[in-house]
Amino acid sequence: MTSNAQQIDAETRATHDDHQALRLWLRLYACTNLIETRVRRRLQTRFGTTLPRFDLMAQLERVPDGLRMRELSGRLMVTGGNVTGLVDSLEAEGLVVREADGEDRRALRVKLTRDGRRVFRGMAAEHERWVVEMFAGLSNRETRAFAEQLQTLKEYIVTHIPMDEDE
Amino acid sequence: MTSNAQQIDAETRATHDDHQALRLWLRLYACTNLIETRVRRRLQTRFGTTLPRFDLMAQLERVPDGLRMRELSGRLMVTGGNVTGLVDSLEAEGLVVREADGEDRRALRVKLTRDGRRVFRGMAAEHERWVVEMFAGLSNRETRAFAEQLQTLKEYIVTHIPMDEDE
Repeated sequence: MTSNAQQIDAETRATHDDHQALRLWLRLYACTNLIETRVRRRLQTRFGTTLPRFDLMAQLERVPDGLRMRELSGRLMVTGGNVTGLVDSLEAEGLVVREADGEDRRALRVKLTRDGRRVFRGMAAEHERWVVEMFAGLSNRETRAFAEQLQTLKEYIVTHIPMDEDE
Repeated sequence: MTSNAQQIDAETRATHDDHQALRLWLRLYACTNLIETRVRRRLQTRFGTTLPRFDLMAQLERVPDGLRMRELSGRLMVTGGNVTGLVDSLEAEGLVVREADGEDRRALRVKLTRDGRRVFRGMAAEHERWVVEMFAGLSNRETRAFAEQLQTLKEYIVTHIPMDEDE
């Protein structure tokens, strides 16, 4: 694909009579895809890892005591991964460990190992540098306004829009 | 999951020393996921269809003469689908058709059938209603500013940030 063709995405092609909200959604979706594609590609080429693995380690890094599998599943941002499979493969590489829960010995908690924490922090620093670069086109003022609008959008949807229409 | 638990997503949990760009990216990603999840769920419950199928029909609807397979693949917004498989199943249902290209008889173009166009337009009207509802928390002024910031972000990334760091 030429670089010109890459710029003609579906949002650009939205016809003039498409309504404002629909165009905004297509633009939001296109932006997220642009960033996500670059992040996935770089995680692969730089670290040989995937976004679901990175996401899983990021959730564990925030909780030194680890998380039960169900809690971990609920916190992942990247959907579609097989959490058990991800934990199995990270455990085989020594990056996470399953341990008996302190309160309920029958339950297992997943934690980053010392190695896992070190590896994650190295990746996270690079990842943040990529994200800073990608948002560098927005001024501080624009960034603040953008963050506020996203917060408004998020709160409105969580509060007003059920997952299923008939709920 | 309780509705309270649903609100505690990864963006909310980002720690205070996370930098601004990273938090903005997590918030952008969370918003896109909130909307995309609802759209996917509703397409399934209301129409028994999927987002990749809807996306494919949306791209064809904009081009009455149809698209070659390669062009179609390049235009899809939703990644990860098997385009040939999608076209096969839509063709089996009579919603799209493969026809010989007018200019190059050896090439095939994919087009919506009359039935496909009718079915798509019904879904698209509903889909737009959902999107309008989801963005209803933003004022007109906020919507315009939001659209401008997304455009700035998109243009900056397309222009400045290659897919691979070393390009």
